[in-house]
Amino acid sequence: MQELRKDPIIGRWVIMATSRARRPGNFVNSEESNLVETPEESCCFCEGRESETPKEICAVRKKGTKKDSPGWQVRVVADKNPILKAFVDLSRTTHGLYQKLNGRGAHEVIVESPKHISNMADLSLKQIELVINTYAERINDLENDQRIKYVLAHKNFRWTRDNQNINHSYSEIIATPVVPMRIKEELRGAKKYFDYHERCLYCDLVAQELESNQRVVSDDEHFLTVVPFASRFPFETWIIPKDHHSQFPKGIKGKEKYLAKAFKEILLKMKIGLNNPAYHFVVHSAPFLRKNPGEVKYQTIAEDYHWHIEVTPRLTQAAGFEKGTGFYICPIPPEAAAEYLREVEI
Amino acid sequence: MQELRKDPIIGRWVIMATSRARRPGNFVNSEESNLVETPEESCCFCEGRESETPKEICAVRKKGTKKDSPGWQVRVVADKNPILKAFVDLSRTTHGLYQKLNGRGAHEVIVESPKHISNMADLSLKQIELVINTYAERINDLENDQRIKYVLAHKNFRWTRDNQNINHSYSEIIATPVVPMRIKEELRGAKKYFDYHERCLYCDLVAQELESNQRVVSDDEHFLTVVPFASRFPFETWIIPKDHHSQFPKGIKGKEKYLAKAFKEILLKMKIGLNNPAYHFVVHSAPFLRKNPGEVKYQTIAEDYHWHIEVTPRLTQAAGFEKGTGFYICPIPPEAAAEYLREVEI
Repeated sequence: MQELRKDPIIGRWVIMATSRARRPGNFVNSEESNLVETPEESCCFCEGRESETPKEICAVRKKGTKKDSPGWQVRVVADKNPILKAFVDLSRTTHGLYQKLNGRGAHEVIVESPKHISNMADLSLKQIELVINTYAERINDLENDQRIKYVLAHKNFRWTRDNQNINHSYSEIIATPVVPMRIKEELRGAKKYFDYHERCLYCDLVAQELESNQRVVSDDEHFLTVVPFASRFPFETWIIPKDHHSQFPKGIKGKEKYLAKAFKEILLKMKIGLNNPAYHFVVHSAPFLRKNPGEVKYQTIAEDYHWHIEVTPRLTQAAGFEKGTGFYICPIPPEAAAEYLREVEI
Repeated sequence: MQELRKDPIIGRWVIMATSRARRPGNFVNSEESNLVETPEESCCFCEGRESETPKEICAVRKKGTKKDSPGWQVRVVADKNPILKAFVDLSRTTHGLYQKLNGRGAHEVIVESPKHISNMADLSLKQIELVINTYAERINDLENDQRIKYVLAHKNFRWTRDNQNINHSYSEIIATPVVPMRIKEELRGAKKYFDYHERCLYCDLVAQELESNQRVVSDDEHFLTVVPFASRFPFETWIIPKDHHSQFPKGIKGKEKYLAKAFKEILLKMKIGLNNPAYHFVVHSAPFLRKNPGEVKYQTIAEDYHWHIEVTPRLTQAAGFEKGTGFYICPIPPEAAAEYLREVEI
């Protein structure tokens, strides 16, 4: 099979070059990890070592236990080397063609368990639910800062810069004074579709995927887990809520348990079926719907955008020109990837 | 320094997170290559082994020598495992939200020297000039196929999928029936600027860079080599022609020598200054200006777009969320990268 497929949301074409004829099993992660991993005895994310991290921003903890001490289940602290900081004033400078903002924002770490467990796939459902709640709480809290336009809740598992690694399950929160490119593209695509059809693009996508059933990994009352039609990377997977909502923190209310199940299921399938690969996921949610958020037209976002989560294992290395052109080559058909994942027993 | 910078062309914000305080020298490639390299005695790209590649599409060769035999200086053949093929009819199918094209296109390899030299940086100026001419010729030839909308001339040096490597300098040509995402974004950004200012965005960028001189690596009569203001990757570098033209094959005429010099200079600086890193480059040129090219509005492209080349060494690994969001973190200020490259003696 050699074909080009168009992503229905942002309009990006992907080359499906599967003549190199590899079966799904050939993509199983074969990489020996050369990451330097933290041994448990010196892991600053483990319960009892709270003094070794920056101060606690918030935590899910037993009543009566104190900040920065044991007794927590999920704990949020500032990143030690933040890429953006909270305590600078926002200022914008321009010079001719160029525009700069200072590094106003936030960069936080969500420690997902008091125990030294490395992969989120191995946390209990209850624990994953607490992590999901914490994402929502942090996003809600950061919304109060008018200078912040977007909050990225995401995870890099064994996929960090510089080959350093904390071998203890954590997610990151990055809050920024601008909207990330990819989210802008999605907003633009979803708006165009809505303007014409007066329907949400993602709602239609969910319906079409369920009907064709070719790329579905699993689904239940509230969530669909699916390999996208124009996936860029092998085994890229999206978790899409069946009920329409543009924003994660509001949309997730009352459905945390279901998302925890969907998360655990896909992460376990990747761990078992693809030999514990590095992966990342990003929560895609609408920007804060304030009166004057600039840059993108937000009038209809509540109707036309639809939050979701994108999970991508790292099984191949992008060729240089893919980074340069945004033109990706996917070596396995999404239908075959979905079938393979569907059949992994967990 | 912690700041966000906006790319003036496509509007993407990049986080400059340089508080991790590493000096330019710290980014020097330290990777031991674990690529399986072809030994010279079995290299199918070397002169004398022409029968081991697919048939010759064209070549720069001595008068009187025959196709698929020795006597050439630059030789173009089809890729052994093409991601797109020339000999299929173009057909478009849609199903609900989804759109597919079959794999109509072309995938060619340009062997840059009859000798077993691995890095383009080590080719003679004359030889690089021949390679540049060959890019232009292949693009011109492929323009005759009305089904092809775009031709990507590019190189991945020691940066290939699957850790396979042919240790003999070559470039690739990929011709596609659609315009790559990134090029579309550039066209859109350049058009917006032109619509307002009635000037070419890239021409203004060249003028501003020369005036400020902060990010210039080198320049001469015809080309500016510059680290872009909002670089995504450390030591990312653009070669921009000073004379306005939207298309590479026409714009390069009469200036091939100058581009060969700019190429050799930046590639040698990267080889020496950054310890022979993997790198890729892509020629960014306007799509073919035909009457009905679809997808993007092409009326003003000849005026508002400006061809150029983007060269990126691989010195860090992108974090997962960068792939997911298009939101990049650059660990070194472009000004420091430019200064470092400027001072590398070649």
